[in-house]
Amino acid sequence: MARAKNVLWIMCDQLRYDYLGCTGHPTLKTPNIDGMAKRGVLFTKAYVQSPICGPSRMSFYTGRYMRSHGSHWNGWPLRVGEPTLGDHLSKIGVRNVLVGKTHMAPDLEGMKALGIPPESVIGVHVAECGFEPYERDDGLHPTGRPRPKYDEYLRSQGFEAANPWEHWANSGAAEDGSLQNGWLLVHADKAARVPEEHSETPYMTRRAMDFICEAETDGRPWCLHLSYIKPHWPYIAPEPYASMYSTDDIIPVIRSERERQNPHPVFGAYMDMRYSRNMARDDAREKVIPTYMGLITQIDDQMGVLMKFLEERDLLDTTLIVFTSDHGDYLGDHWMGEKDLFHEQSAKIPLIIIDPSREADATRGTRSDALVEGIDLAPTFVDYFGGKVPGHILEGRSLLPLLRGEKPEWRKVAFSEYDYAMQDVRLKLNQPIERCRLFMVFDGRWKYIHASGFRPMLYDLETDPEEFLDRGDDPECAGIIARLQAELFDWALHPSDHITTPREKIAAYADNQLQVKGGVLIGIWDEKELAAIKDGIAQRAKM
Amino acid sequence: MARAKNVLWIMCDQLRYDYLGCTGHPTLKTPNIDGMAKRGVLFTKAYVQSPICGPSRMSFYTGRYMRSHGSHWNGWPLRVGEPTLGDHLSKIGVRNVLVGKTHMAPDLEGMKALGIPPESVIGVHVAECGFEPYERDDGLHPTGRPRPKYDEYLRSQGFEAANPWEHWANSGAAEDGSLQNGWLLVHADKAARVPEEHSETPYMTRRAMDFICEAETDGRPWCLHLSYIKPHWPYIAPEPYASMYSTDDIIPVIRSERERQNPHPVFGAYMDMRYSRNMARDDAREKVIPTYMGLITQIDDQMGVLMKFLEERDLLDTTLIVFTSDHGDYLGDHWMGEKDLFHEQSAKIPLIIIDPSREADATRGTRSDALVEGIDLAPTFVDYFGGKVPGHILEGRSLLPLLRGEKPEWRKVAFSEYDYAMQDVRLKLNQPIERCRLFMVFDGRWKYIHASGFRPMLYDLETDPEEFLDRGDDPECAGIIARLQAELFDWALHPSDHITTPREKIAAYADNQLQVKGGVLIGIWDEKELAAIKDGIAQRAKM
Repeated sequence: MARAKNVLWIMCDQLRYDYLGCTGHPTLKTPNIDGMAKRGVLFTKAYVQSPICGPSRMSFYTGRYMRSHGSHWNGWPLRVGEPTLGDHLSKIGVRNVLVGKTHMAPDLEGMKALGIPPESVIGVHVAECGFEPYERDDGLHPTGRPRPKYDEYLRSQGFEAANPWEHWANSGAAEDGSLQNGWLLVHADKAARVPEEHSETPYMTRRAMDFICEAETDGRPWCLHLSYIKPHWPYIAPEPYASMYSTDDIIPVIRSERERQNPHPVFGAYMDMRYSRNMARDDAREKVIPTYMGLITQIDDQMGVLMKFLEERDLLDTTLIVFTSDHGDYLGDHWMGEKDLFHEQSAKIPLIIIDPSREADATRGTRSDALVEGIDLAPTFVDYFGGKVPGHILEGRSLLPLLRGEKPEWRKVAFSEYDYAMQDVRLKLNQPIERCRLFMVFDGRWKYIHASGFRPMLYDLETDPEEFLDRGDDPECAGIIARLQAELFDWALHPSDHITTPREKIAAYADNQLQVKGGVLIGIWDEKELAAIKDGIAQRAKM
Repeated sequence: MARAKNVLWIMCDQLRYDYLGCTGHPTLKTPNIDGMAKRGVLFTKAYVQSPICGPSRMSFYTGRYMRSHGSHWNGWPLRVGEPTLGDHLSKIGVRNVLVGKTHMAPDLEGMKALGIPPESVIGVHVAECGFEPYERDDGLHPTGRPRPKYDEYLRSQGFEAANPWEHWANSGAAEDGSLQNGWLLVHADKAARVPEEHSETPYMTRRAMDFICEAETDGRPWCLHLSYIKPHWPYIAPEPYASMYSTDDIIPVIRSERERQNPHPVFGAYMDMRYSRNMARDDAREKVIPTYMGLITQIDDQMGVLMKFLEERDLLDTTLIVFTSDHGDYLGDHWMGEKDLFHEQSAKIPLIIIDPSREADATRGTRSDALVEGIDLAPTFVDYFGGKVPGHILEGRSLLPLLRGEKPEWRKVAFSEYDYAMQDVRLKLNQPIERCRLFMVFDGRWKYIHASGFRPMLYDLETDPEEFLDRGDDPECAGIIARLQAELFDWALHPSDHITTPREKIAAYADNQLQVKGGVLIGIWDEKELAAIKDGIAQRAKM
């Protein structure tokens, strides 16, 4: 009997594309992740469907654009019945398991209306976005919110507090050992108050390994989503990572004075957000970036642990391994903090896929510059497990052909969306709630951004790879803008909304004139014509 | 105590706008419906959201565009959890009751995935599109499909057959009394084989009256959807209606030879459908139209019965009454049969609303030329019952302000959609399944039709009220096309997809900086800045 296939899908949070050795960072050390890239394919043009955790993740977990799944912001519940990767995998007997973060909020009202108890098996499946929550931990645990298991773990190790997550793992230690608020950028240079082994990243790795051990007795194939919170803020790393990098290791800031001169109103409003103003400060970058780098190297070390574990368990030959992120982090580039807009620092993610199949041997260690979207992972997994990808639901495309050296006709543009209705930016721009929408269309060279109610933005990544020059109001670019706008228009008019009706059913219906067979006769003149139609159907059936 | 309000929502099937006395038909007699128009407001520019039963009705029943509810064709299930009028009404204690047709197909797979037994109370609610099915009857009952209660009724009256609906009520009687297949146009001039009182229209009226009687003891307010199948085909009317109108009563056909010269490919393919070729024949029009007219006068007579009944029960003062249709019927105009495209014969519907409120007295007997969409009814009903219209779900607008003589800022364009993936037209045009999409944008004068993969169509109803001249490729109209295309683009980018998150919640979030209150601190520099923010929030809370 063939051994069960598995998928190990590792996701970091807020890890931007260019902060890995293999994607070009000159000082950051990520030898294990670089090694993974050598075993698989590194995608150099992978974009998230929204540059913010919740909506981006809901796109990963549903394989659908934000305009289809409807979760525009962190904490906006995915509607009950929205099909998830877990639904598609469970149909083919694969467990879809979570260790770590999803950012899913349950649609309690929708569940109530349909009489689904949230604590029932189906209720948990719905509330957890189709995952079996081996360990759910969204990674942000301010006081007053439900507590993670990790709190208990810290307590079991002697780290007592009302909120151990915040008090020990995500607060900084001053030189005298006193607690410093880890949420604040000014303390990002201080070490976490827990030893490395008890910090979140290795804890989650161990939980993933616990699951993999337990799954051996279960025997069913699994897709394990190991979803780290780091290097997301609070920017607090444990030693030795906290002091592993210094200001000497920081790459130069990517920004231009020109960006602040008469900027697009939406860009201007974002540069004016508190977190942007703060992250644009040199002293903030010097506090935050070495720690961000340390947190990445910590993850890299955990990748070493994990790959060794898989090798020892003889799982490398059967497990498709994915390493990626949910979006980037401006880190002061473009005068911005956080994510929000569509510059490469924000919307582009690292993506490494190791397909263990023999068919993928030829591509190992190569790079692919195909335009990839986060929504491609769900169909890739279904495809890997041998399932039929439901193309009327999943809006992404399986990446297996690319991993296996085929040259399929590929998408010409990648899309991403953003809704700033929940942010101060809406108030600053005085936009109606329903019109705070941004849409990116990127063709590999030109990045067009539609901003409802404003002129578009446009960047030419060939002549301006740093995206300093917004050509959205340049008359010379009118043709390019029209072309990419037409792509957006076409995309907007053709969503995958008819999720109850598969294409196969549609095809069979018109092909076979099923309406006449069903006895509903439309606009037929007389008995003779009816007989001729029936005769034609019968003839065809014989063919 | 105030008496409970009710809504009586009467819908005909395939009744086109201009086939009523009050909308201008010169020979058709509809005195009762004309009388209703005198008691209320007649809307002269009301458009369906798709010119075909199922999708149009799903828009009526959800208050949402087809692109939002996803049911593109007859029999495509509305997804489980898609919010319906019934959901909105049940929250405010109103029963949403059905007598007649909805064309709803249950999402059995979706129900199964969520563990909802179809026979449970919630299962029936989901399967019946949010209606309490007092009597569900979709009106088309070919042999081999589940049988309606109406079959039993006919049998109880002595009309025995394997399929009484077809055998007696919808077959024609030849002069010798023998049965003629009522599905065939050639027999449309023959009378039904049941006496008038046992035909479908009066049967459904009686069932509605039965419900209203029973509801008196229940006491809860109700919205009753009385949904007739007629004048939809099979075009078979009982006497005296079968011989009430003659070929002399037929209005001249509305078509031009020019329409067949180099037509738009989609229009051309539709003109070439069997039902179009047949209905374009003069002899077909002469067979069908007098019967179509007779069926309408039969409905009119039933309106007389119903209004008298409501008056006797003293319900006219409390009941909002709506008379409308789900789409039109070309009847050979524009060389077309059936519906499918967006000419006035197809996409425009009669709509009469009688609001019993005193505030509506000033508009009684008037006409409104506001651009109205079928999706406006659901919010109108919620509004009438005093509920809060959930604007993040319902895409229509309450018509109460128009009924009460207010002059609200109103929509500038009406939208309608069509998906021909299930039809032969797809095969003729060799279009991919996902790209068989048509979109109408009508601004009250210009009717723009976007056809995916083809040039647009355009009609100027001011200079060309008969819609003979397609100006979709007229360079002079480029500006108008660009304007209406921009409207479509904007509409396509801003659907009501975030149905789990109301606008009020969004507004409160950004306004009140709830993120900081919740303990998640993003990009704040130090303790001093944090204190200032908290201080600001506290100050604001006091104001």
